[in-house]
Amino acid sequence: MRRAVTLAAHGLGATSPNPVVGCVILDASGEVVGEGWHQRAGGPHAEVNALRAAGDKARGGTALVTLEPCNHTGRTGPCAQALIDAGIARVVYAVGDPNPTATGGAQTLRTAGISVEAGLLEAEAAEGNAAWLTSVRLGRPHVTWKYAATLDGRIAAADGTSRWITSAESRADVHRLRAECDAVVVGSGTQRADDPHLAVRGIEGAVQPLRVVVDTDGTAVTPGARVLDDAAPTLIAVADDATPAYAVEQTVRLPRAERGLDIPALLEALHARGVRSVLLEGGPTLAGAFVAAGAVDRVIAYLAPVLLGAGPAALTGGGITTIAEALRLDVSETVRIGPDLRVTATLVAKEH
Amino acid sequence: MRRAVTLAAHGLGATSPNPVVGCVILDASGEVVGEGWHQRAGGPHAEVNALRAAGDKARGGTALVTLEPCNHTGRTGPCAQALIDAGIARVVYAVGDPNPTATGGAQTLRTAGISVEAGLLEAEAAEGNAAWLTSVRLGRPHVTWKYAATLDGRIAAADGTSRWITSAESRADVHRLRAECDAVVVGSGTQRADDPHLAVRGIEGAVQPLRVVVDTDGTAVTPGARVLDDAAPTLIAVADDATPAYAVEQTVRLPRAERGLDIPALLEALHARGVRSVLLEGGPTLAGAFVAAGAVDRVIAYLAPVLLGAGPAALTGGGITTIAEALRLDVSETVRIGPDLRVTATLVAKEH
Ligand SMILES: NC(=O)c1ccc[n+]([C@@H]2O[C@H](COP(=O)([O-])OP(=O)(O)OC[C@H]3O[C@@H](n4cnc5c(N)ncnc54)[C@H](OP(=O)(O)O)[C@@H]3O)[C@@H](O)[C@H]2O)c1
Ligand SMILES: NC(=O)c1ccc[n+]([C@@H]2O[C@H](COP(=O)([O-])OP(=O)(O)OC[C@H]3O[C@@H](n4cnc5c(N)ncnc54)[C@H](OP(=O)(O)O)[C@@H]3O)[C@@H](O)[C@H]2O)c1
Repeated sequence: MRRAVTLAAHGLGATSPNPVVGCVILDASGEVVGEGWHQRAGGPHAEVNALRAAGDKARGGTALVTLEPCNHTGRTGPCAQALIDAGIARVVYAVGDPNPTATGGAQTLRTAGISVEAGLLEAEAAEGNAAWLTSVRLGRPHVTWKYAATLDGRIAAADGTSRWITSAESRADVHRLRAECDAVVVGSGTQRADDPHLAVRGIEGAVQPLRVVVDTDGTAVTPGARVLDDAAPTLIAVADDATPAYAVEQTVRLPRAERGLDIPALLEALHARGVRSVLLEGGPTLAGAFVAAGAVDRVIAYLAPVLLGAGPAALTGGGITTIAEALRLDVSETVRIGPDLRVTATLVAKEH
Repeated sequence: MRRAVTLAAHGLGATSPNPVVGCVILDASGEVVGEGWHQRAGGPHAEVNALRAAGDKARGGTALVTLEPCNHTGRTGPCAQALIDAGIARVVYAVGDPNPTATGGAQTLRTAGISVEAGLLEAEAAEGNAAWLTSVRLGRPHVTWKYAATLDGRIAAADGTSRWITSAESRADVHRLRAECDAVVVGSGTQRADDPHLAVRGIEGAVQPLRVVVDTDGTAVTPGARVLDDAAPTLIAVADDATPAYAVEQTVRLPRAERGLDIPALLEALHARGVRSVLLEGGPTLAGAFVAAGAVDRVIAYLAPVLLGAGPAALTGGGITTIAEALRLDVSETVRIGPDLRVTATLVAKEH
């Protein structure tokens, strides 16, 4: 099953709105005879790929799958039926399918006389599918807020200079994060200050994320902005009543909030476009709005071993005024990236 | 030698103004026959302790020492002579003694016909003795700034509440840091806000550090303050012209700086009292003054996986205005302490 979880991860960033799934087929004697993963939305599911690789050797064998095999006919046939047709004797899956239209696969398999077990390496498989599971449970994309700051929590010096707080290694690592998500989001402040590109560079075969700029009045993205090139698709979120100075086809109109645009409405609009995972790349004001909306599921902090003692903070205006309201996370990973630290922390309580 | 470095560390916090030193004696056949470390200032040196344990078996053997054996007669006799008297044939040491009054031990040994080698595990031994080596090189105590903050660099929420940002495990870990240093320093702001105790609790056999409050006008420490109990010695630094409302014998008078007291003068006063390592426990304003004075050698950050988005920052007023002036460190260790991260970073460039 660990191998199946690893296989599943190959699909990150390419399968939305579907989950990532990995599958390993063992023959009747327990030998691995087929492996597969769900490679892209619309393409064959993991089970089908693995069964194809196994061919006749699957008969009487075992299928290890990271997610309960689906039961419905979408763009591809139901996997439960494919497993039955291949003569599989036993199915072991990690995580039950919470999707109301796909669920029931286990029941179908059992009715066909196949032995079914659930829960093997469930936590590990669920973590690999965190984005998709969150999106099914909450009806909005999973949000990772990524930021780069000094050890004392600053994103720039007092005079605004910030190139470069974190290292080239950390900046390269961000491209991997972008490749694994469906959309990258920044605010109008970051758009104005940095004219960011937001596309994935340097990762072969990566599916480009949707680049999203939250630009209430439609004034921050101007002709010639780097996000308007054709390296990746782009969506600019503007207010219902905005009169953007530029003409872009991919504009979405959203209701205003007390400040800027309504964040739940933004996430809903992205979800409707098939986005299941969002990488929020800032800045501190927009991140604060996401925190205030309860819309941060995971934080990835690139911390440089640098002290500034002055300058803008990494996060502002999250609506937290007292310590009891603080957003508490669990550290799930700490890794050195060049001279920096990458700290990943998740809102575990919300995801279960 | 690795064993000698480990032995040396047992002395941390108890040997000032002396270094920590560890020694292992091998007999002529290479068997370990004696171990020792320098346990407290005024007590026998590591070599003498190890030779005592080895007895006659030292004859013709090898001494592995973390620091070049001393050559001068202080409160105890010179170790170089003790090694000669014991009939040691070979001495291997890690770090040369930079102390002008103690140096020359290697030469004395060689003149006596003993084979001498230097530099084995030098970096490791130097790290263990960082405080003492810094104090000899710079003529002031080694300073570790310790702070506890959220992942976004806040030490309290917007309304000032801060109990508890970091965990009980992190707070307990701080007592180990206190036990390893000679003095613990806080500013008048922290004294007023927290009435801290600053003594070591829960560590058996720990030598209590000197508790130091930097209280320019002599108004923050008031009768009944917890630092005035007899759990540990206390020193209150006040301005030359201050008229403290309380009477404390252990007061040191220092010149004023643009703001508060002169930090180099404070460190000089502590050095004169035998303090070789300082644990600066804040707050953010005093830490900023130390940063501005170039007097932070090491940073230990306890980071809680918590976001606040508002509230006071961990460090303020360090005099850094642009990114090129940022204080750059090297991460030397990252450890999980309960739910928190403890990040240790050092100014490597300054220590070599
Ligand atoms: N170190 C890092 O990780 C990092 C990452 C990104 C950016 N940055 C830096 O951050 C700085 C920009 O930060 P910033 O905070 O000014 O900009 P920002 O967070 O990128 O954008 C803030 C703007 O977004 C708009 N917005 C739309 N909906 C909003 C809502 N619901 N709540 C709040 N704002 C909303 C508002 O402007 P309108 O309503 O007028 O559109 C608001 O002023 C730049 O210097 C950039 O370099 C650093
Ligand atoms: N999370 C943590 O790790 C941590 C640690 C410690 C404290 N804290 C919190 O920090 C807060 C207090 O911070 P703070 O910044 O107000 O106080 P602080 O840094 O403890 O003390 C600052 C005061 O020290 C005096 N001082 C003396 N010499 C100075 C110099 N050269 N430069 C600057 N100041 C000098 C000044 O007052 P006078 O000149 O008037 O004496 C100054 O106002 C409290 O809420 C406390 O709980 C947090």
